[in-house]
Amino acid sequence: MLSDTLKNIKVLAFDVFGTVVDWHGSLVKEIERLGLDVDSNEFALAWRAGYVPAMQRVMSGELGWTLLDDLHRMILDEILQKFDLKNLGEDQKHHLNKAWHRLDAWPDSVEGLQRLKSKYTICTLSNGNMGLLADMAKNAGLPWDCILSAEVFRKYKPHPDTYLGVAKVFDLTPEDVMLVAAHQNDLESARLCGLKTAYIERPLEFGSRQIKDVSPNSDNTLHARDIVELAGIFEC
Amino acid sequence: MLSDTLKNIKVLAFDVFGTVVDWHGSLVKEIERLGLDVDSNEFALAWRAGYVPAMQRVMSGELGWTLLDDLHRMILDEILQKFDLKNLGEDQKHHLNKAWHRLDAWPDSVEGLQRLKSKYTICTLSNGNMGLLADMAKNAGLPWDCILSAEVFRKYKPHPDTYLGVAKVFDLTPEDVMLVAAHQNDLESARLCGLKTAYIERPLEFGSRQIKDVSPNSDNTLHARDIVELAGIFEC
Repeated sequence: MLSDTLKNIKVLAFDVFGTVVDWHGSLVKEIERLGLDVDSNEFALAWRAGYVPAMQRVMSGELGWTLLDDLHRMILDEILQKFDLKNLGEDQKHHLNKAWHRLDAWPDSVEGLQRLKSKYTICTLSNGNMGLLADMAKNAGLPWDCILSAEVFRKYKPHPDTYLGVAKVFDLTPEDVMLVAAHQNDLESARLCGLKTAYIERPLEFGSRQIKDVSPNSDNTLHARDIVELAGIFEC
Repeated sequence: MLSDTLKNIKVLAFDVFGTVVDWHGSLVKEIERLGLDVDSNEFALAWRAGYVPAMQRVMSGELGWTLLDDLHRMILDEILQKFDLKNLGEDQKHHLNKAWHRLDAWPDSVEGLQRLKSKYTICTLSNGNMGLLADMAKNAGLPWDCILSAEVFRKYKPHPDTYLGVAKVFDLTPEDVMLVAAHQNDLESARLCGLKTAYIERPLEFGSRQIKDVSPNSDNTLHARDIVELAGIFEC
């Protein structure tokens, strides 16, 4: 029997990068496939590291509203310089930037999502743009009921409009929505808006050279090793 | 072999009300199930007839941005007066308004969409709000890759931002996108933006007492009896 805390949940909103898909491993593969003369692990980490500062430039108003695809491209152009990779053609850069649309799911994601979908509405709540998330879902077989994105709310997480926006889209109170994420700061921001939260362990999010601390935080409603385990907790 | 005109199409964007789901038949059933003392056919038609004027109030600026759920409720409140149905409780009105979330698919829609999905990205382009379209998809088993809505673009069809918005979301030129709809005016507006167009015959959209003219218009790229026939044309 589900506990009273879980009984009213109607919608599970998933963070995507790191939680559902393995951005680090997928980028490393793409970089190696392209044969770039670079440490693929370092390159992937540098690309991702540019993400938070780039979003902050949007949220501070320094940049107007900019889709993640375009932020990824700005960061890519910078790190290509930094890693001294100056002879990539425009087509190659465009293709590489679209690697974010082709990220692989973690091995448990598709099964876990399919099981949860049988009882709940499952959606994304990601800073990725709609097209990126739709391409990724088609490519990786992620069976979302609905793709929601910063693009819909014109705010990037952790802005409250994103978490509260999910509840509003589904005409629910925030406590009927659960954010599922592999990042404690994302979950904390959701919790401050009244959402329930589930932490998913992804110790390899940054690759095997930099194992992530996946200790439980008792402020979360749930803690699960992966999405299949989460489906089990929800008796799906 | 697909013709050259069709070969570059990547995304099929579907109008929903009337094209994919049978709003008239579904509303009639809901009204009869509620036991309202009213001609269910007339009531359904009156509700839908309020839709275009209500949207125009938004698009003219007379009303601020308003979701279709809220427009449906404003119209419902008016027609309940008009049909002299004054003793419905708030819960009943709320439930009836959500009938638009529970519309049934036409018999060919799920099979046709599933087949098209095997080769194309299929999405909605509807004036319905995201929550309405997501609930409907879950209820009727519509296998969208992505739900796009007036809510994302903050404009109602036929505003060009909606048609061009689909192309932009998927980083495509307008001619790589096809709008599929049972309404010639919707298709015409899409065509003016450069999209390809497919007309779907839905002679019973307004019920069997008011058969719709479904004559072909040669300006459309394609004309199909239903979505299964469309899948056949696309060799899916």
